[in-house]
Amino acid sequence: MHSFAIVAPDRGIENSLRHKVDRKTKPPGSLGQLESLAVRIGLIQQTLTPSLERPQMLVFAGDHGAARAGVSAYPQDVTWQMVENFLAGGAAINVFARQNGLGLAVVDAGVAHDFGGPREGLIDLKVAPGTANYLETPAMTAAQCAQAIEQGAGVVFGLAAAGCQVVGFGEMGIGNTASASLITHCLTGVPLADCVGRGTGLDDAGLARKQALLEQALTRYRAAGGDDDPFAVLAEFGGFEMATMAGAMLAAAEAKMVLLIDGFIVGAAALVAARLEPALLDYCVFCHHSAEPGHRAQLQALQAEPLLDLGLRLGEGTGAALAFPLVQAAVAFLNEMASFESAGVAG
Amino acid sequence: MHSFAIVAPDRGIENSLRHKVDRKTKPPGSLGQLESLAVRIGLIQQTLTPSLERPQMLVFAGDHGAARAGVSAYPQDVTWQMVENFLAGGAAINVFARQNGLGLAVVDAGVAHDFGGPREGLIDLKVAPGTANYLETPAMTAAQCAQAIEQGAGVVFGLAAAGCQVVGFGEMGIGNTASASLITHCLTGVPLADCVGRGTGLDDAGLARKQALLEQALTRYRAAGGDDDPFAVLAEFGGFEMATMAGAMLAAAEAKMVLLIDGFIVGAAALVAARLEPALLDYCVFCHHSAEPGHRAQLQALQAEPLLDLGLRLGEGTGAALAFPLVQAAVAFLNEMASFESAGVAG
Repeated sequence: MHSFAIVAPDRGIENSLRHKVDRKTKPPGSLGQLESLAVRIGLIQQTLTPSLERPQMLVFAGDHGAARAGVSAYPQDVTWQMVENFLAGGAAINVFARQNGLGLAVVDAGVAHDFGGPREGLIDLKVAPGTANYLETPAMTAAQCAQAIEQGAGVVFGLAAAGCQVVGFGEMGIGNTASASLITHCLTGVPLADCVGRGTGLDDAGLARKQALLEQALTRYRAAGGDDDPFAVLAEFGGFEMATMAGAMLAAAEAKMVLLIDGFIVGAAALVAARLEPALLDYCVFCHHSAEPGHRAQLQALQAEPLLDLGLRLGEGTGAALAFPLVQAAVAFLNEMASFESAGVAG
Repeated sequence: MHSFAIVAPDRGIENSLRHKVDRKTKPPGSLGQLESLAVRIGLIQQTLTPSLERPQMLVFAGDHGAARAGVSAYPQDVTWQMVENFLAGGAAINVFARQNGLGLAVVDAGVAHDFGGPREGLIDLKVAPGTANYLETPAMTAAQCAQAIEQGAGVVFGLAAAGCQVVGFGEMGIGNTASASLITHCLTGVPLADCVGRGTGLDDAGLARKQALLEQALTRYRAAGGDDDPFAVLAEFGGFEMATMAGAMLAAAEAKMVLLIDGFIVGAAALVAARLEPALLDYCVFCHHSAEPGHRAQLQALQAEPLLDLGLRLGEGTGAALAFPLVQAAVAFLNEMASFESAGVAG
């Protein structure tokens, strides 16, 4: 597998960034989280005048073998139907990406459907038509997992070559909150029950069934000697959309891009990627608190403080697209606001 | 004084709005606060296809007699210096309004400075060059307070005539967190100490001094028989920027516009306006949680749940301008997203 060269940004410029923020015409600290965000983006780009050119959403789609066992409120066909909705421009992520000036591409990482050849807006990186059912066997082989990571990285290296400085991550895959719950449990140590939620809308009986099935999958993995190695956990329980996304994230951090991290499923991929390469976190902007309960475990493990808390639990990257104007605002105030000196205001 | 004809929106269309939201291609409720916001804006405009044409920020500026007594970390001259900064385009509100496509006008409601005749972007509605010092006497006369309300209303009726559907409120006035603390205490009953904060950045000694001065002002008002009538409280402790803003809010609700409410000082004006005309709240979008502690008392009294919580405490309307893309997103998903039926997705 590709070895990613991800290094923490040099902090030599940090004092200059903080000084620039503090000389803006405002009380010190009064822009709250936007101030620390501006400094972080300046560090990522090693400049006092950062930019966010060619912002791009990538929505990774894949199917999960376990979905057929009943871990979701929706049938598996909804995955490809929603991909068609993305391609037709009618989904929430289309609306928010358009509104906020983000490009949007969909990556078929492993949807159990034939989209009928090359399609405008769809990148075909299908590893297989859905993962295996982790209730019975690992979701993917190590080779498939490595392939997905490589392929995801390739897309982002292409974006970087085209001048993209900020990439938002989204996903679609019926059953993938279940997958994210297992990964979150294994990589954070938070009890599985606290990592499992209603996903797209399970009722109480459905939630109990989902929890029981995930306990069963976990028991099988532990009995087979499975440990908490991030790559192994990803291959065991992940989806191709999550593995491909993890590779894309690693490449984006290597390319010193700003990563917009959406909610619970994207967070699970970020957790895997950060366990593989901890410096990745310096490049991540956590965009929103998901209403899915396991997201809290991820955020605590990653010491992340997201920008939005709107009770979102849609996925697709919608939280990332919605938060993007705040990221732009952080860069804009750093670049455009007057200083006390330049404006002639008593500081 | 002008009598405002503010009525709660007819709820006859509410079920149709909720049905439209629920048929969008997403799990029910998964867009969280944006769903209730979309319904509210549909109700305000009495349509299933709302719009947010000609969005406009209004920043109201005024000086406070009490500022000279030492209730702020900044000298009073910063009020007019910041107005000059607004007119030159260099303040935070300029940056965020530009970024998010909001027009911006500054209203001189009572700044203690001569801006030298008509100025591009400045609306001259100066009631007087600063209020009186409420440590000694009411901040304004009843006639001045009524004049400010009338003048604020006039500006908004003009915007409405020009097709503006959404107006964001901001303010500038050294000393106005102190004024907002007194108003918040009188109109919510929350102890004054819980309504007073560091404003632009007082240290512990400064905060103690501010609290003592405000207790003194309150004691004087109570001794003179002052009660909790919203108009009387506004005249006693308010700034001209707050009274003018309250009038602008009342007019905006009468004109069935969407009101973007910023933080603590704008919230104090909204509190006054809502006590005068409770139906005003149906037109308000509370944009952010201010880091100023008294804001919590306002939000609880108004049962408001703001969109953002970023630790902002800058004022100027910055929280309103930053939240505007989320308001646009609520309208955009309602108008643009496909339904399960139109997209052919299993619901």
